[in-house]
This record gives sequence, structure tokens and C-alpha cells, in this order.
Amino acid sequence: MKTFNHLLRTAVLTVAFAIVAPSAMAQGLDVPSRNLPVPDSVSPQIQKLIAAPRRAGWDVLPKTGQEWKPVAEAAAAGTLKALPGLIDRMKVRVEKTTFDGVRAFIVTPERVGADNLNRVLIHMHGGCYVLSPGEAGLPEAVMMAGLGGFKVISVDYRMPPEAYFPAALDDGMAAYKHALKTTPAKNIAIFGTSAGGALTLEMVLRAKQLGLPMPAAIAPGTPMSDVTKVGDTFYTNEFVDNVLVSRDGFCDAGAKVYSAGHDMKDPLISPVYGDMSGFPPTILTSGTRDLLLSNTVRVHRKLRQAGIEAVLQVYEGQSHAHYLRDDSAPETREVFAEISGFFSRHMGK
Amino acid sequence: MKTFNHLLRTAVLTVAFAIVAPSAMAQGLDVPSRNLPVPDSVSPQIQKLIAAPRRAGWDVLPKTGQEWKPVAEAAAAGTLKALPGLIDRMKVRVEKTTFDGVRAFIVTPERVGADNLNRVLIHMHGGCYVLSPGEAGLPEAVMMAGLGGFKVISVDYRMPPEAYFPAALDDGMAAYKHALKTTPAKNIAIFGTSAGGALTLEMVLRAKQLGLPMPAAIAPGTPMSDVTKVGDTFYTNEFVDNVLVSRDGFCDAGAKVYSAGHDMKDPLISPVYGDMSGFPPTILTSGTRDLLLSNTVRVHRKLRQAGIEAVLQVYEGQSHAHYLRDDSAPETREVFAEISGFFSRHMGK
Repeated sequence: MKTFNHLLRTAVLTVAFAIVAPSAMAQGLDVPSRNLPVPDSVSPQIQKLIAAPRRAGWDVLPKTGQEWKPVAEAAAAGTLKALPGLIDRMKVRVEKTTFDGVRAFIVTPERVGADNLNRVLIHMHGGCYVLSPGEAGLPEAVMMAGLGGFKVISVDYRMPPEAYFPAALDDGMAAYKHALKTTPAKNIAIFGTSAGGALTLEMVLRAKQLGLPMPAAIAPGTPMSDVTKVGDTFYTNEFVDNVLVSRDGFCDAGAKVYSAGHDMKDPLISPVYGDMSGFPPTILTSGTRDLLLSNTVRVHRKLRQAGIEAVLQVYEGQSHAHYLRDDSAPETREVFAEISGFFSRHMGK
Repeated sequence: MKTFNHLLRTAVLTVAFAIVAPSAMAQGLDVPSRNLPVPDSVSPQIQKLIAAPRRAGWDVLPKTGQEWKPVAEAAAAGTLKALPGLIDRMKVRVEKTTFDGVRAFIVTPERVGADNLNRVLIHMHGGCYVLSPGEAGLPEAVMMAGLGGFKVISVDYRMPPEAYFPAALDDGMAAYKHALKTTPAKNIAIFGTSAGGALTLEMVLRAKQLGLPMPAAIAPGTPMSDVTKVGDTFYTNEFVDNVLVSRDGFCDAGAKVYSAGHDMKDPLISPVYGDMSGFPPTILTSGTRDLLLSNTVRVHRKLRQAGIEAVLQVYEGQSHAHYLRDDSAPETREVFAEISGFFSRHMGK
């Protein structure tokens, strides 16, 4: 009898073989220029995000941590201006703290969910390993706390020029170890988007290396899981995604500066190449226009091939992390409801 | 406390509101011409499919059932030539039959899985409601029977010029009712790809209308769930998908002929507009280059909004239904392993 596991093992072995086989395919597909209308199949809020022009300065590529600093500060200004309103709408309290030398924010909802009293989430913010320092990294944590009713520790990890690979990962691990002192792993989940999604995966890989217990669940949103330019949507969604725009844009330039010459194929910076056996249940989020859709679905397949419960959510028309842009959009509410529900089903009480 | 269900209900209500709100967005996004390389992140077999030129005659648009007949026969010739080899490799037996006037094939694996002895799958083949008549509709059924160890009834439903909407759906319903005579609904699942994926969804909507019991699970693969040209990847993946190529190509021309003037927004031909409450657990399959990726993810979101267990699988680099093209590809094995596993978890014994 052919069982599911047998079939999946066969698939995994064959894929493993295929990866080492050399590709003889050089030819590509020529695609003509096109105008992409704003779809009717999403809410007006998401339509507005889709209709926005490409990110200004997407092709500005700072080459050092020092060059990134003013870029990051300028990008943070808008976020910081909008943050008080978001905190107010989400009815959360934010406290600045440090533990073991690591900076973080504790985000606590006015009403913690009854099932969530003994649970804590660790949040790793996005920003290509160089953007969203300090409070600018908070919006996703604030939405998760407010919409999900969870207590969230948002890690203000070190970034260039303060520190380089693996500083962000080390700070995330320090936060995880700190949480483990007071909370069992089964009551901890980790989440984040973009670089934060990659860091979420990297933290699980690192926890495995260190023999730490696995968190109950993780939610990597559109993770930068491959910084080596492998992935089909780096090409198909180039100039289609109005946030990242291109693999040859600002975001991978940030990852390159953070890596400081470290091998980009190391699973601790390109986690799609990691061994995902033993991973906790995982919920992944992306969009049909997302430059990192391939980065997301490739992680999904790797997890499934390793026999892990892994759930994929792809939102219509959205570019990279559009779901974090407007807390009034029904799709944003839906993303956080899916993640909260997934966490609740997998976390202890 | 905010619960998952509460949040999801709020999201659903807000989406419902958003759909009736008029869109003020007219501007679109200009995307330059590009060359898309064949990705390294898939097996050599899938690379070969991705490297293939666009389907010959994708822009030939027959306007009547009579005009479709020779096109369908020409397209079927290649499939029929390859079928005996596939049947041999999959170790299945195929018997032609009719019940209540409906033509079908019974596909039985050499070794039915031990858990599958009292289970039956109903297969609705693809082909834009006009292609793959007779044995040409069998490959997907043969692969599911062989790789999953299931007995499969593949419905050779009526198509133009023999009959028009809702003939294909009626024949599918006749097969379902026939199966219900000997097999409890909890031991029946329905699957199909493209038009077959749409018919799978349409059959569940129709079964609800008729008060029939729900099947245990369904697997719509890249369903033609919206034939009204709504869906963002109709635009973003136009000329990127080398199978369907364009919404203004042969496939929707086939659906139009089948509809014979019937309202294309009727959920029985554009099932994404149907009420999906009470649907059985559903596994959906698509690819990042699929013209119907939006058709797929929109159904996924509708099901999730209705509180249904719905699983989405998106395969790297694949155009429309590439996963049916090469039974030696590890990704093909993986697709059928995922669907078989999902069915096994949800079907009675």
C-alpha cells in the first residue's frame, strides 16, 4: 500500500537528487511590457496600496552600515509619526526594556485574551536587516497584540552600523532564552515579516543547533528566506511588486551589508537551505504580487517535505508585506486573525 | 476577549461591504518587458516544462461547439498516444462504463490502499469545458489512482457541441448520486483541475442546493473559479503562464462557448461567487506562474472566511496545471501525495 508518508519520502529523495543535477536550461521567456490594472477583487484599502507608485528610492543601494543609517532614519520618520495613532486604536501599552543587554519593547493589550494569560509571542521586525530601528519596528507587534490579544516582546535587535551578522539573530536568541526562563516553550510563539520572517526561521534553526526546546508555533510572513537571488518570483514579480520592486533593489542591498561578507547560502541568513525537520507548526503569509512569493512557497514546501504542519496564506494582489500597511483593511484583520487562530490552536495555556 | 472567530467574522463583514463599494482606482502599473530565466529552484522535469514555448494556438478562439470539435480532437491526439504508457507505469486498470446515461471510466489501481477499500473518488477532468473528451480526460485520474491507491470514477461529461451549460455539472452530479447509492458521502471525495476544479466546486454548491450530503473532502486544482476576468493574476501572469498564456486566450473562449449565453457570474460557472459555508475540507493547488493563481487563492480566502478547513499549496515556478504534465517529476509526486494524504485524513473507512 502506498501511504502518504511513503509518497512524500519518495518526493523528498527525488527533489534532493534533482537539486544537485546541473540545469541545462539557459533560455528564458520573453514577456512584453504591460499595464497592470488595480484589481477589483480586494478591499478599497488594499486597492489604494496596490495603486501606489513604486517605493521612492527602491534603487538606492547604500553600501555600508554608515551609509544606511540616515536612510533608515528617514524611512523611520513616517512610521514613528503614525505609531501613536496605531497604539491608540489597538489599545495596547508599550514599555521599553532591556534584558541581558538586548533592547526590546513589551507590548501588552488592554485586554489579554483569557487563553493567552500565560502565553508570550516574540516579534522580530522587518526592514532588510538595516531598517526600522527602535520604535519604528513596532507596528506589526502592536497589531498582533491588539488584534490577537497577546502579550508581545518585540526585539529591537542590533543592526548595521552598530553590529553585523549574526547580531540580529543573537539578540533574537537572547530574547527567546529570556522568555524560556519564565514561560515554557509550548507557550511561546515567534513571528515576524520579511527580514523578521527570515529571523524567525533562523531562530528555530539556531535553537535546534543549541538543543533548546522548540517554540509552540511560528509565523514567518513573506520571509527573506533566500538572499542568493534564487526564486522564480524574483523575476516574475520584478517591477510588479511596488514595495521591494526588484531583487537588485534596496532590500537585498541591506541584507548584503548586514552579512558583512558572510556566506549568503548559510541557512542562518538564507534559511530556505536549512534542515527543517523538527520545526514547530508554521503559518506562512504572502501575496500574489510579492517579490518574495517564491521565498515563501519554497519554505512551505521544505517544511511539508520534512513532515511539518505548515499552512500557506496567499493574499490576492498584495505586494511584499502590504498586509502590515493599513490596520483598517479587512485583509489586514484577516491576516492577524489567521495567525492568532493558528497560534491559539498550537500553544499551551 | 477577541477570538479568532470574532476577528474572522469582522473581516468577512468588512470584505462584504468593500465589494459593493465602488472602486475609484483607474490607474495601473506599467511593467517593462523582461526575460524570465528558467528557475534553478525546481526539478529538471519542471524546468523543462517552464522552458517550453507558449502553447501553440493559445490565441485561436473557436466561437461555437462545432468549431471546437476538431480543435479538441487534435489536442487529444497527443494525450491518447501517451496514455497507455502512463496507465502501465501507474499500474491501473481502466474500464469504460455508463450509469444513468452518463459516460464514465472506472480507474482501479492494481493495489487499492488498505484504508481505501470502501472509498471512492470522483474525478472531473479539465479542458476549459470543451477539451479532453473520452480517454483524453484520464491522465489525472490515472495518476491519482496509481499514486494514491484509490478507486476513481472519472466522468466523461458532455461538452460542446454535444451539450452546453449545465450539462457537465449535471453529469458530475449524476456520478455523485450514483456513488452515493453504494458509498456513504463520508467515503467519497471529488477532485479535478482547471475546469475540473471549477466543476468540483460547482458540484458542492449544487449538492448544497439539492440537500445532498457533503463529500468528505474536495481537491480543486487551479480552478477556473471566475470566468468574468476578475482576478489579479489574469494580468500579472499574462504571457508569464506558458499554458493558458492569457485570459483572452483559448481557455476562456471555451468556457464562453460552454456557457451558451448563461450569466458568467452564476456561481455554478464562476464558483468563487458561491456561498461556501458548509463546504467540506478542501485542498487547493496552484503555481507561482499560474494565470489562475488568483482564482485559486480567492477561493481559499472565501473558504477560510466561511470557517472551512482549507489548505493551499503553491508550487514554485509552475504555470497552469504543470503538475499534471510529467508523472516522473518529484513535484508531481508531491502534489498527489499531498492530496492523497489530505483525503485520507478526512475520509471515512
